[in-house]
Amino acid sequence: MPSSETSAGTSAGRPGGRSSRVLASIYESVGALVGEGAERITFPVIAERAGVTPTTLYRRWDDVDALLEEVAVAALTREGESAPDTGSVEGDLTAWALAIARDISRPERVRYLRAMVAARGGPGASCPVTDRRQDQAREVVRHAVERGEKTPSVDQVLDHVIAPLYHHVVFGLGVDDAYARRLVADVLAMVR
Amino acid sequence: MPSSETSAGTSAGRPGGRSSRVLASIYESVGALVGEGAERITFPVIAERAGVTPTTLYRRWDDVDALLEEVAVAALTREGESAPDTGSVEGDLTAWALAIARDISRPERVRYLRAMVAARGGPGASCPVTDRRQDQAREVVRHAVERGEKTPSVDQVLDHVIAPLYHHVVFGLGVDDAYARRLVADVLAMVR
Repeated sequence: MPSSETSAGTSAGRPGGRSSRVLASIYESVGALVGEGAERITFPVIAERAGVTPTTLYRRWDDVDALLEEVAVAALTREGESAPDTGSVEGDLTAWALAIARDISRPERVRYLRAMVAARGGPGASCPVTDRRQDQAREVVRHAVERGEKTPSVDQVLDHVIAPLYHHVVFGLGVDDAYARRLVADVLAMVR
Repeated sequence: MPSSETSAGTSAGRPGGRSSRVLASIYESVGALVGEGAERITFPVIAERAGVTPTTLYRRWDDVDALLEEVAVAALTREGESAPDTGSVEGDLTAWALAIARDISRPERVRYLRAMVAARGGPGASCPVTDRRQDQAREVVRHAVERGEKTPSVDQVLDHVIAPLYHHVVFGLGVDDAYARRLVADVLAMVR
């Protein structure tokens, strides 16, 4: 599941090497434990599942929350590196919102997201998931501007499409296609 | 801190009676532990702090997450039972958004909220915090309709003012007055 890029900041090994295989095993073990709803996910528990020594984990991550967040980020940004490019801002926003809604409303993703929220630091700490969404929103808005379309701002897309989707998921309110489409219609109504 | 209403569903005692004092002590102990950033909040830990037997807790709540959520809900809806009534939808939404932003961005509230998110069940489970916000949003919209003002819908208020505020807080992105005002301006732009 994890590519070498997702762990570029912490992986010391070459892609495809032993270190990369160990990392894949660690990620998969964390994913499995989170997916099973395991109550206590500790370094020794992960190490046993992944077939590595706890020292391997202690050396690489400051604490188990840092590892959980790294795995969550890798798992949550899999639906595509680039935002859709359909030829209109309405098409791009709709395709993007639907992809996100479907991805983050799956039970294992919900568990990841909640684990990530629980592990978040105070305001100001950068959040890799939201950084990624910001990059994608910039791309959608840039394309709209290039086509000469009226478009909501990057902040408006983040606040009124992305934020409600994640809010609904982490608070257990449910997300479906109709909800994603409604958010896109609302944000477009702001600039009409 | 807790009123007898906040525990109406679970408290067996009369308001002001022994049961109510015990409940206040339990709530305060949970609040203190969460506020201290305690790593493991269990029934025995809470019981010791509150000066009650663990059995008192086991009898009243199914598990510690249920207790944490109940306390979080009580703590998070303290800024007023009713939505503001300033005479215009813009005034009401602004006053309400500012009150919420200031309340939920305090460090102890952020900890409560994250604990609550971590304790949430699957989609469909009712969420007392969001139920409360929905009631308040209905009130604001109803007043606007009665005054003959153009107003966003209840869902639009929840999705585009409330959701981004909570999203920013739980993901550690920071919330301030300017952010709250911008969200209100955006949601009003949807109906202009």
